[in-house]
Amino acid sequence: MTDRDPSPPTIEDIRTAARRIEPYVHRTPVLTCTRIDEVAGAEIHLKCENLQKVGAFKARGATNAVFSLDDRLAASGVVTHSSGNHAQALAWAAQRRGIPAHIVMPTNAPTVKRNAVIDYGGIVHDCEPTLEQRLATCERVAAETGGAIVPPYDDDRIIAGQGTIALEVLGQVPGLDAIVVPVGGGGMIAGITICVKAIAPEIKVVGAEPELVDDAARSRRSGRIESHRGDPTATIADGLRTTLGERTFPTIRDQVDDIVTVPERGIRDGLRMVMERAKLVIEPSAAVGIAALGTEDFRRHGFQRIGVVLCGGNLDLDALPSLL
Amino acid sequence: MTDRDPSPPTIEDIRTAARRIEPYVHRTPVLTCTRIDEVAGAEIHLKCENLQKVGAFKARGATNAVFSLDDRLAASGVVTHSSGNHAQALAWAAQRRGIPAHIVMPTNAPTVKRNAVIDYGGIVHDCEPTLEQRLATCERVAAETGGAIVPPYDDDRIIAGQGTIALEVLGQVPGLDAIVVPVGGGGMIAGITICVKAIAPEIKVVGAEPELVDDAARSRRSGRIESHRGDPTATIADGLRTTLGERTFPTIRDQVDDIVTVPERGIRDGLRMVMERAKLVIEPSAAVGIAALGTEDFRRHGFQRIGVVLCGGNLDLDALPSLL
Repeated sequence: MTDRDPSPPTIEDIRTAARRIEPYVHRTPVLTCTRIDEVAGAEIHLKCENLQKVGAFKARGATNAVFSLDDRLAASGVVTHSSGNHAQALAWAAQRRGIPAHIVMPTNAPTVKRNAVIDYGGIVHDCEPTLEQRLATCERVAAETGGAIVPPYDDDRIIAGQGTIALEVLGQVPGLDAIVVPVGGGGMIAGITICVKAIAPEIKVVGAEPELVDDAARSRRSGRIESHRGDPTATIADGLRTTLGERTFPTIRDQVDDIVTVPERGIRDGLRMVMERAKLVIEPSAAVGIAALGTEDFRRHGFQRIGVVLCGGNLDLDALPSLL
Repeated sequence: MTDRDPSPPTIEDIRTAARRIEPYVHRTPVLTCTRIDEVAGAEIHLKCENLQKVGAFKARGATNAVFSLDDRLAASGVVTHSSGNHAQALAWAAQRRGIPAHIVMPTNAPTVKRNAVIDYGGIVHDCEPTLEQRLATCERVAAETGGAIVPPYDDDRIIAGQGTIALEVLGQVPGLDAIVVPVGGGGMIAGITICVKAIAPEIKVVGAEPELVDDAARSRRSGRIESHRGDPTATIADGLRTTLGERTFPTIRDQVDDIVTVPERGIRDGLRMVMERAKLVIEPSAAVGIAALGTEDFRRHGFQRIGVVLCGGNLDLDALPSLL
């Protein structure tokens, strides 16, 4: 972090976000499962963001961003480029406020994801499937519509919104030793870490990411934002294929306690265990947190009472056999 | 009902059961899902017995039966014949009390069900796959071990145990117009009906069963317990393939308000909707209650605030593609 960097969001930003989004999002339940406790050798508390609006924690950040715009700016709507949960979440949040959501999607995005955005009233703008074209189209749509760009994670409003997960967990489960958080772009773990370190700094925050996209672990070691070494689509955890951002990295580097990486086999086994035993539908990204519990790197900490964020439940049921 | 029939269980039996089983079973959550409300055109409250111990409401009745035995009788254990959720539930409940559970299973029962019983400490006794052999083996094992037979549904202790679902729902969701309950042998709907009619008789209790095993609807019309017209394994709702019992039928005949039947397509669509939108893993039998919401027979009642019991979550994930 250089002197030019403004400070990360604060616990006050997270408290403000919590008040702002409270009328719209769920205070998701925390559930337990005897079998998962047995396998993990610890007491596991599942924070069920798969039961969140639009099926993922992304509803929190998107709602915070949409409702933090002043009325004049909001009237022109919001703009983002995403083909994942953030796209649906932003369309949904904009619909709650009654403003347009312009979602730039690559032409090769799955029809089911495109339709989900349209279902929530979003306006889809096609672009060629390159990052360059996505960014360029996003800028163009923002210029043409006057809409406010809301990035999927590298944004303080998003980070503060995702941090509200931790505010809830700390109230729901006293005395945690650690919270395990899947890491993609880092918005969720940055927000959760800011909250935990402000309120209960004795609780460790541990990131979890697939071995095949271990950019967060490598970024912490090198001290700078690392890109992927291989093809990020090699992991089934499609929500975690992004790299860290300028706004999320400083908190991850300086305040997160550990990041563990998990093999694909562990993600598949975690997906099966949560669905078969906890009876919850989760997406593969959420199984990464469960998989972390079984790794040596995690178990050496000896945590006894652990929160795990089940970050989302947007699973393609028809693709499930290929994920187990 | 003839004069020889003793009275059905009472609300006091259900209250006693609730106190007895409270240390062991979950007070399951009630969840909502905007999409299900939209499709149903009403406010739907999902009583999540899929999140119950052993993944089904059967844990309630089994626990009530096991813990209502006096110490001397209990020492010899319990006996049942079942290859379904009752088998697992009884094994689990007996393990809680530290007594043996003898489970008579047909030799053609799926290995996964057999292993689940063994996982819970149950002792499996093989028998030929005919009802006659199952009953005979059950009697023989009971005679040899001195164990107490605990039937899957046609038993007052079981009915009272399942009735505790309603005690909870009435406290969790005030002002319901109706509760929808899948019907197999009728233990659950009998218990729920006894509770509802004692505490809040203005709430309607509606049974739901597959068209392909519509024995409960026909039994109400004819006034006697009807058997199946076709092959009960034709429905995917494997938990509802039984017919009513002598102890469950009188309440179903005299106090249940309606029973609606649902097509297989509706069960499949309900299974998909609950998994995709409510993010809950349910078994096909639980989807029968969701399917009922879409039938003309149900909608003509015009209920606005409806509880639906998601009775179980023991789904074979590997078989899921064939169920959608």
